[in-house]
Amino acid sequence: MRYAISEARKAVGRAAENPPVGCVIIAASGQLIGAGHTARTGRPHAETVALAMAGQRAHGGTAYVTLEPCAHHGQTPPCATALIEAGIRRVVIACQDPDRRVNGKGVTMLRAAGIDVITDIGSDMAYSVMQGFLHRMVHKRPLVTIKTATSLDGGIALGDGRKVWLTSPPMRRYVHVLRSKSDAILTGIGTILADDPEMTCRLPGLEHDSPSRFILDSQLRCPPGAKILQNNNAVPTVIFCAETASPDARIALEKSGAVIVPMAVDKAQDDGLQKRLDLQKILRYLGDAGVNNLLVEAGSSIVTSIIADDLVDVIHWTQSQHLLGSDAIPAISPLKLVALPEQTRYTETHHQQIGRDRLTILAKSL
Amino acid sequence: MRYAISEARKAVGRAAENPPVGCVIIAASGQLIGAGHTARTGRPHAETVALAMAGQRAHGGTAYVTLEPCAHHGQTPPCATALIEAGIRRVVIACQDPDRRVNGKGVTMLRAAGIDVITDIGSDMAYSVMQGFLHRMVHKRPLVTIKTATSLDGGIALGDGRKVWLTSPPMRRYVHVLRSKSDAILTGIGTILADDPEMTCRLPGLEHDSPSRFILDSQLRCPPGAKILQNNNAVPTVIFCAETASPDARIALEKSGAVIVPMAVDKAQDDGLQKRLDLQKILRYLGDAGVNNLLVEAGSSIVTSIIADDLVDVIHWTQSQHLLGSDAIPAISPLKLVALPEQTRYTETHHQQIGRDRLTILAKSL
Repeated sequence: MRYAISEARKAVGRAAENPPVGCVIIAASGQLIGAGHTARTGRPHAETVALAMAGQRAHGGTAYVTLEPCAHHGQTPPCATALIEAGIRRVVIACQDPDRRVNGKGVTMLRAAGIDVITDIGSDMAYSVMQGFLHRMVHKRPLVTIKTATSLDGGIALGDGRKVWLTSPPMRRYVHVLRSKSDAILTGIGTILADDPEMTCRLPGLEHDSPSRFILDSQLRCPPGAKILQNNNAVPTVIFCAETASPDARIALEKSGAVIVPMAVDKAQDDGLQKRLDLQKILRYLGDAGVNNLLVEAGSSIVTSIIADDLVDVIHWTQSQHLLGSDAIPAISPLKLVALPEQTRYTETHHQQIGRDRLTILAKSL
Repeated sequence: MRYAISEARKAVGRAAENPPVGCVIIAASGQLIGAGHTARTGRPHAETVALAMAGQRAHGGTAYVTLEPCAHHGQTPPCATALIEAGIRRVVIACQDPDRRVNGKGVTMLRAAGIDVITDIGSDMAYSVMQGFLHRMVHKRPLVTIKTATSLDGGIALGDGRKVWLTSPPMRRYVHVLRSKSDAILTGIGTILADDPEMTCRLPGLEHDSPSRFILDSQLRCPPGAKILQNNNAVPTVIFCAETASPDARIALEKSGAVIVPMAVDKAQDDGLQKRLDLQKILRYLGDAGVNNLLVEAGSSIVTSIIADDLVDVIHWTQSQHLLGSDAIPAISPLKLVALPEQTRYTETHHQQIGRDRLTILAKSL
């Protein structure tokens, strides 16, 4: 099962809207005869890949799968059927699939065919690898990860807003890996106007694993020449705007290849001047679009809004050894806290030195 | 020598104005026959303690000392003489003593007596243990360590200034150990008025290792009933004030047992309203008073001033998992940086998890 999970890990951020599943086939003799994971963009499924590798030798063997095999006819026949037809004798499953089209039906189908089914083996580890998908199935929105690069004292840029590289090249490469493990990336118009980033994964070997890109830009201030719109060969960049945004700007941006999606404005936050798009609705939209793992790389205002709305699941906090002082742009804007909870809202799950910087990963406290 | 250095470590923060020295005596047979470190308040010296333990057996033996033995008659006869008289045949020394009363004379005296002297053994490690003293000898001021307890995003208190315990009890205990390793602690009137702290070491077994306490209070706003003045049995708390501070306040505070020391105001920072005492002069004063290791536990304004004046040697940055937002009180006030240097001003030398918090130790970059 560990091997199956390591297979699953290869598909994280690359399988949406399908789950990143891993599958390993062991022959009756004990020999490893097949292994695979969900292919790019979700098909073929892991079981199909592993069974194809095993061929005839799968007969009488055991399949280890990180997620309950599907039981429904989608664009491909159900994997449960494939396992039965291959003559697999035993199936070991880490996690049940909460997708209402599966949710126990895969197990039932296998057992009805006389296959020995064992469940909940390695489920914690498998869960953590597939949590984006599982989260989306349960909450109807992606697992939301924010990434921020700060000085030791929490600043992200000098007071004049000028872009500085706080963290060192190894940490910046780590961020590219993080992007490659995300199905989609969400940024704000502030970041586009300040830094004109590409928001792609530019590590050798991972060039094809860039996430789809989404921009929050209520007033459609994004320049049609922005870099994030240029590198648009695979999937077009989507811009969320207010329904009241300028039609002319919309036409210009659509000419640049962007897809414009008007969204509701958050009424509670609408002060007439600065329209804030409704983040709940946007996450619901991204969930419906099949995004399992969403990475938010944005400035203070979006990061703060999404934290204040309690929509953040994971934080990758990277920190350099600089001290910027409180005249720097802060990573987080005012939160208007009136008391400090006994339990912090996020709990550290991992900590690591990368280059000369520190990475702290925190998850929402249970 | 490692053993001698571990002896020296026991005296850090407890030997000023003398250096925290360790000494080990090995008999001609190879047996360890004596070990000691500089006693509390500086006397007897390490060599005296170790030779007393060794007794007659020291004859023909080897002494390992972390610092060159003293060669001058102070309040006690020179240690070089004591080693010669004890019949020691070989002396191994980690660091030379930069004190101009010694500075090579100890080695010369030993060699003149026919003793085999070996120097620079384990000097890096010994240097780090004795660096407060060595720093004071060279720079005429203490080694300055600042300690700050922040949220992940660099806040130290909620926006309304209310005291919150960001870090957990294990980290707070660590801070008491840090105090016990300091000869003196420096705080500001803002901290006194906000928190009324004792600034003592209250760990079981270390109650007698509290540092001397110094307060920056230009206008003598310190209440005569402040806790930091009460627990005054060992060494009186010293308050630095401007020469223009109220004589009545001075009389009231002296009645509470405080020692009042008028100091010059930093002309460059004097805006007529907020007088800032001259930190250079205060550190020079503390150096003259024999403080080797100074711990600064203060609010943003003092921490920021002392960083901006480039007077900080070591930073103990402790960090909880809280996010406070930028409406929190920042650990560091505006630094007015206009560019980010290629090299950070401080470099991480140690990192550790303590309880659920993180400690990062940084030293001034070379």
